[in-house]
Amino acid sequence: MKDRQIPYKTYLDFEEIPKQWYNLRADMKNKPAPLLNPGTHQPMKAEELAPVFCEELIAQELDNDTPYFDIPDEIYNFYQMFRPSPLVRAYFLEEKLGTPAKIYYKFEGNNTSGSHKLNSAVAQAYYAKKQGLKGVTTETGAGQWGTALSMACSFFGLDCKVYMVKVSYEQKPFRREVMRTYGASVVPSPSNDTNIGRKINAEHPGTTGSLGCAISEAVEVATSTPGYRYVLGSVLNQVLLHQSIIGLETKAALDKLGEKADIIIGCAGGGSNLGGLIAPFMGEKLRGEADYRIIAVEPASCPSLTRGVYAYDFCDTGMVCPLAKMYTLGSDFIPAPNHAGGLRYHGMSSILSQLYDDGLMEAVSAKQTDVFDAAEMFARVEGILPAPESSHAIKAAIDEALKCKETGEEKTIVFGLTGTGYFDMVAYEKYHDGKMDDYIPTDEELAAYRAKLPKID
Amino acid sequence: MKDRQIPYKTYLDFEEIPKQWYNLRADMKNKPAPLLNPGTHQPMKAEELAPVFCEELIAQELDNDTPYFDIPDEIYNFYQMFRPSPLVRAYFLEEKLGTPAKIYYKFEGNNTSGSHKLNSAVAQAYYAKKQGLKGVTTETGAGQWGTALSMACSFFGLDCKVYMVKVSYEQKPFRREVMRTYGASVVPSPSNDTNIGRKINAEHPGTTGSLGCAISEAVEVATSTPGYRYVLGSVLNQVLLHQSIIGLETKAALDKLGEKADIIIGCAGGGSNLGGLIAPFMGEKLRGEADYRIIAVEPASCPSLTRGVYAYDFCDTGMVCPLAKMYTLGSDFIPAPNHAGGLRYHGMSSILSQLYDDGLMEAVSAKQTDVFDAAEMFARVEGILPAPESSHAIKAAIDEALKCKETGEEKTIVFGLTGTGYFDMVAYEKYHDGKMDDYIPTDEELAAYRAKLPKID
Repeated sequence: MKDRQIPYKTYLDFEEIPKQWYNLRADMKNKPAPLLNPGTHQPMKAEELAPVFCEELIAQELDNDTPYFDIPDEIYNFYQMFRPSPLVRAYFLEEKLGTPAKIYYKFEGNNTSGSHKLNSAVAQAYYAKKQGLKGVTTETGAGQWGTALSMACSFFGLDCKVYMVKVSYEQKPFRREVMRTYGASVVPSPSNDTNIGRKINAEHPGTTGSLGCAISEAVEVATSTPGYRYVLGSVLNQVLLHQSIIGLETKAALDKLGEKADIIIGCAGGGSNLGGLIAPFMGEKLRGEADYRIIAVEPASCPSLTRGVYAYDFCDTGMVCPLAKMYTLGSDFIPAPNHAGGLRYHGMSSILSQLYDDGLMEAVSAKQTDVFDAAEMFARVEGILPAPESSHAIKAAIDEALKCKETGEEKTIVFGLTGTGYFDMVAYEKYHDGKMDDYIPTDEELAAYRAKLPKID
Repeated sequence: MKDRQIPYKTYLDFEEIPKQWYNLRADMKNKPAPLLNPGTHQPMKAEELAPVFCEELIAQELDNDTPYFDIPDEIYNFYQMFRPSPLVRAYFLEEKLGTPAKIYYKFEGNNTSGSHKLNSAVAQAYYAKKQGLKGVTTETGAGQWGTALSMACSFFGLDCKVYMVKVSYEQKPFRREVMRTYGASVVPSPSNDTNIGRKINAEHPGTTGSLGCAISEAVEVATSTPGYRYVLGSVLNQVLLHQSIIGLETKAALDKLGEKADIIIGCAGGGSNLGGLIAPFMGEKLRGEADYRIIAVEPASCPSLTRGVYAYDFCDTGMVCPLAKMYTLGSDFIPAPNHAGGLRYHGMSSILSQLYDDGLMEAVSAKQTDVFDAAEMFARVEGILPAPESSHAIKAAIDEALKCKETGEEKTIVFGLTGTGYFDMVAYEKYHDGKMDDYIPTDEELAAYRAKLPKID
């Protein structure tokens, strides 16, 4: 057994929780490319975004220069419910692997939303309330983001309307009921509330919906209902800003323990968790103060960084949202139906895309069954049942720890454990029953999606 | 807004976690009545219990005198995964209620089993392993206890066989999959593995099972398989001993904050949570060092303390287990099918029954829809989605806090929040859809069950 001088879990004292978010863009030499108007292909201005998003969130979205943003008292107050989250030393996992590496994980799953999504949900709900809005709309797939947003809206007394992909609404009723507990109205999408929903229902009778359609419905309702705006749980710069609380707490806890990370690992779908976790570390790297290996882990079935291209693309399948420059598989891309859990987005946050393109971080992909192997092993030794998304990071952390075992290096590995898998037991059941496979898109399939990318000068 | 000098959450430092369990029986003047042999009606001896239970657990079960038991290092090591649990100051709830009372809750739900059950599961698995056993058997209803036990057995490398009531096995597959993730074999009960299972299947073709039948199957397998024993998650003295960690941590945290509890509230089914939470406080009361109001809260649909009788009764419907003296509704009693969640046991732990009979604690009952009203309000203001069981304590704490609002008294209320409701969303759905009712057994029904109690001199 290793010497256990460092506690299993480190909780910052409450007053040690960071009081500002960190805006990574301020330290980037190559700034992330701006959002473009889908009609004119010119950079979107604040006033063009105002019908869709809250004003203060637009200001955060467009600000590439201000390094720190104060966290408003009301948000800090809410953070007290579920923050600080623990930084856990994975002694049990280290012993299981027999690695000389030190493994830490930042566990963001100990809240009712079950993930890190709550960090941004509370911020977005707060600014909507502050602007005097009545409510917000959003879309959700399995319900992780919708749950987080409904909790935040309930707290601030804001109406919350969630368009939930119909197949999830019907087959995964548990998160739907959590959202209803928090007073959200949850609408199966496509609905008959909207023009786009009615159109899709007419054209595809009996359709079970898609995330792209749900986004279009949520945006339509937000822009056509007085006092409403649309909110989004990942991809956007503002979301990464709010999620920087993850990395700032992680860094503060490591500093308190006298530890320095060598490798930082996070799963990546739209990029909100990874962007938040790495923020202060990448900041040091950008400023030349320290060096870290930073690794994004994505599913082999949705490999935007490892097999996509860096180009302007639509953020939604409806092609009504602004264009973003990102590593993308094409806005039509949908992972194979056998793909469990989240990390299904066709593109990657513009910030992370630029950092990756600049060679400042690495990316790897992991196959689904390997991810569940890692998840189950982790659950058994560390006691936490991880979300499939988070388990991508576990898989990569284990791989790095096993490399250290070969080389004998005592590296310090930090990964983000974004959430729990309590609402993903259907995927675990498939895994236990040997019904999970590893379909990976072919080069031909990816080329076909890529051919449909918009042409931007 | 109240002055917030005290932090929202208090985590003990790891080295402050108690290193011994406290055995409340040592300070009881009137000891709990002994278990009786169902054949001879004589007190059960250790050797009679040995075919069913682990030796060291039997010693703990029968020991009414030793006040403290050292927590073995191996158990303490496991505790590091999920303990200390936080003591939370419910500022948000206090503000919602507008009460001068101070409300604290000890939150035991932040672990994968979702409840306090893990505290005893790890102890029972450890002693089984120490005895050189191959495995343990148990029964589970919705799966809370089975999940906790499977986690503990996985950690110690012990085989774990869980007989799960068939209707839950089929209709609530999520916890079943959690158990499988931890390597347990989960068998729908009645099965064809056992004599009793085959008999029940033959007599009642298509039966969906009962907890009583699952207990009988688990006991039969444990006593007929070399290297196996049976373990139970509540009711027994040994379980209350292990659960004293809840109360000891609560007391240590309150002491650290300079707070003194006035009222301590816990939900009560078999009594493991309540017995654990109140242990050190009741100890002080028994020794005349302090006084507390201690309140057990039970469902109005399963009111063993408030409407049962104090008498010897069978612990199981199969009537093969020892007889226990307890407040009981009769071993045939099953709550109405509309009753959601746990707290379904027909009797109450002998320790708590004796304390209640001696006037050392109070008991109240709560109706199901009132409990869910309290649960939803709590979820919205405190951010934690509570288990239906735990919500009985929330309901009573709210009632006491509202009394303080009337009188202006600034009492300190402490309650146990035993777990989360993530696997109880079907019950929440019924509540949201207005399909939950409040059936309460009539006096005539209770009298009929009571008439079947065994006659013991």
